[in-house]
Amino acid sequence: MATKKRNAFYAQSGGVTAVINASACGVIETARANKAKIGKVYAGRNGIIGALTEDLIDTSKESASAIAALRSTPSGAFGSCRFKLKSLEANKREYERLIEVFKAHDIGYFFYNGGGDSADTCYKVSQLSEAMGYPIQAIHVPKTVDNDLPITDCCPGFGSVAKYVAVSALEASFDVRSMAKTSTKVFVMEVMGRHAGWIAAAGGLIEDHGIPVIVLFPEVVFDEKKFLARAKTLVEKHGYVTVVVSEGCHYADGKFLAEQGTRDAFGHAQLGGAAPVVANMIKQAHGYKFHWAVADYLQRAARHIASKTDVKQAYELGQAAVKLALKGHNAVMPTVDRISDKPYKYKIGMAQLSKVANVEKFMPRDFITPDGFGITPKCKRYLLPLIQGEDYPRFKDGVPVYVTLKNVPVAKKLPAFELK
Amino acid sequence: MATKKRNAFYAQSGGVTAVINASACGVIETARANKAKIGKVYAGRNGIIGALTEDLIDTSKESASAIAALRSTPSGAFGSCRFKLKSLEANKREYERLIEVFKAHDIGYFFYNGGGDSADTCYKVSQLSEAMGYPIQAIHVPKTVDNDLPITDCCPGFGSVAKYVAVSALEASFDVRSMAKTSTKVFVMEVMGRHAGWIAAAGGLIEDHGIPVIVLFPEVVFDEKKFLARAKTLVEKHGYVTVVVSEGCHYADGKFLAEQGTRDAFGHAQLGGAAPVVANMIKQAHGYKFHWAVADYLQRAARHIASKTDVKQAYELGQAAVKLALKGHNAVMPTVDRISDKPYKYKIGMAQLSKVANVEKFMPRDFITPDGFGITPKCKRYLLPLIQGEDYPRFKDGVPVYVTLKNVPVAKKLPAFELK
Repeated sequence: MATKKRNAFYAQSGGVTAVINASACGVIETARANKAKIGKVYAGRNGIIGALTEDLIDTSKESASAIAALRSTPSGAFGSCRFKLKSLEANKREYERLIEVFKAHDIGYFFYNGGGDSADTCYKVSQLSEAMGYPIQAIHVPKTVDNDLPITDCCPGFGSVAKYVAVSALEASFDVRSMAKTSTKVFVMEVMGRHAGWIAAAGGLIEDHGIPVIVLFPEVVFDEKKFLARAKTLVEKHGYVTVVVSEGCHYADGKFLAEQGTRDAFGHAQLGGAAPVVANMIKQAHGYKFHWAVADYLQRAARHIASKTDVKQAYELGQAAVKLALKGHNAVMPTVDRISDKPYKYKIGMAQLSKVANVEKFMPRDFITPDGFGITPKCKRYLLPLIQGEDYPRFKDGVPVYVTLKNVPVAKKLPAFELK
Repeated sequence: MATKKRNAFYAQSGGVTAVINASACGVIETARANKAKIGKVYAGRNGIIGALTEDLIDTSKESASAIAALRSTPSGAFGSCRFKLKSLEANKREYERLIEVFKAHDIGYFFYNGGGDSADTCYKVSQLSEAMGYPIQAIHVPKTVDNDLPITDCCPGFGSVAKYVAVSALEASFDVRSMAKTSTKVFVMEVMGRHAGWIAAAGGLIEDHGIPVIVLFPEVVFDEKKFLARAKTLVEKHGYVTVVVSEGCHYADGKFLAEQGTRDAFGHAQLGGAAPVVANMIKQAHGYKFHWAVADYLQRAARHIASKTDVKQAYELGQAAVKLALKGHNAVMPTVDRISDKPYKYKIGMAQLSKVANVEKFMPRDFITPDGFGITPKCKRYLLPLIQGEDYPRFKDGVPVYVTLKNVPVAKKLPAFELK
């Protein structure tokens, strides 16, 4: 641990979530509570790009109430980015620049808030200490709606998306049930998850509310014939069916359902969703009228229906990251360690970043029913605690009050740096 | 008014909403409070089809708490239908059947809960009294997310969809703002409204929260060149743009944006959404990375984020329908009559169905900005009161507690009737 007071750097990375700002809140509030050890918290504007270009935000210029409001504001308050550092060997120039910037602003703590790719970046930064002789402690704060980080029981952002998907699929299923006699019999909802089916799995929870539902996971190769038969069985039995399809659902050859070779009037390849493809497929086979929705950003930004458990954990992991740094750790990530399902108990643990970076956690096979179209009781026991509780934002004029920070820049001390 | 106690018929019609059951709750609770005048309330299973096929539900079998729970349950609890009665001249058989069913079950009150088409059906039923000598009082209970009924200031269902759209568009805009530096710069959200742009208009409210937004209305002919220029201007100024597009947005020749002549790999015409079309259009013109969402049923079923004002009005209009019947009215619809915008005040009024049936109310031109891409302060004054207040359902196990009624059938007394 740094023996003298040093500044901290915090940045958000990759796709943002409904609760990544709650982690930011945890980091900044905990740093502020430890002023003897940590000086200012500088946030990177647009993630690591802010560090490389010395585009730092002075979070000390924000009031305590503005920082507190981050807890109930979705999105990334400092801007995020999709930018992965290459290895030290492949791109030494960027690492040298990072060190220059850290030195110039006396940064001794590096908090990086992101998913798998970001854990890799954070891990690389954590190695600067040894490899390049610059003392820095790098702590990763987990975040990803995809819930695909290893070791931690769950990832902040996921619980809220899972809640959004369960609530929305339940509501839309009630709707289609009402309409099924003379109109819509099939409702298809597309959700995120390119590789892992955790988000789609949350749609399976509505089965316990009497809804006939089919879930299509990226982990299960799509079998059109079997799927169409299952859809028909459910419509004949219940009058309707709800399908929750992951954007990553694909055929045996790896081709995504969303890539149907669809072309527009000009012959351009059309980037479509998986939902309309699935819906049209059922229509063509069985003639059922359908409706489909693609939730896209709506699902990961839906702070208004965030899971209270998720918000709490996002905050606690931000808080824990700072505490780990103060204890002298480097190259680690705080984790959620589940103790029991019911009652739900967990503690905050710690993982080595070397074991986190570049590892994806998929749905275990025993979380998916043998036919591949639903979730098992074991999966439900896993999911249910994560969507518990509501954490409503304050509303004004009919919409939530979300904070936009001042994001005051820190004066630059270095020459400009060109991103390549 | 019926001089002796008679039974009531209630049915839900057309697309359901987050609050149509709140109107059902208002009708049934008010009828129960007037037992001296109104016997049982029979609900049509799947709307008017339930009346024609004598498929009636005995709502007296439902507990007071189950009926009360309708107030916070989206969808149509008794089932809805898309079925429009032809004129008396064109299809006397159906009207004769209705009278048979009404007679067999001593029905003197007909409450029909729907939009424009349903108002027409209700109006036709109201004429049975005179035309076919059967004493019945038909009252229409307004409902439509499209907000396109005339005379009434607004329609139950609309306020909640408007709130959903404003909240979701705001949240997703914060998201894209975070990502814009290196990734998504354009977010396109498709909303309902085939003919009228009221729902899309609600997306325009986020402008007052600092979001660069373009709204595409069905009332404004789509001008691709002007639209692309506007999108570019906003992205260059703000770094990103949110587009809220109505499903009914169309070209000068009437062709919907959603009908781009898109064909799948098999050459089948593809039913796509307007959102991916708009998103791809911007991508091709300017190269901006995009995301798009199609809210579809999610928007109209989203009881979890319903407008408190809307829920209250839905209930009051159901209540008012029964009161109007008890006062002896026929062929009328209770309305919301706005008294003032701020503070928002309204009273429940009454309209003649002859003036409601088959009339669509579009967005007035002075609610849309001169450039056709936004809403005016006048429109905002109209919309804002309608999205005020939250009316959260109770949650259990992470999702809302929505009631599924027993829907006990009434014993049939007549021979079967074949729908043609």
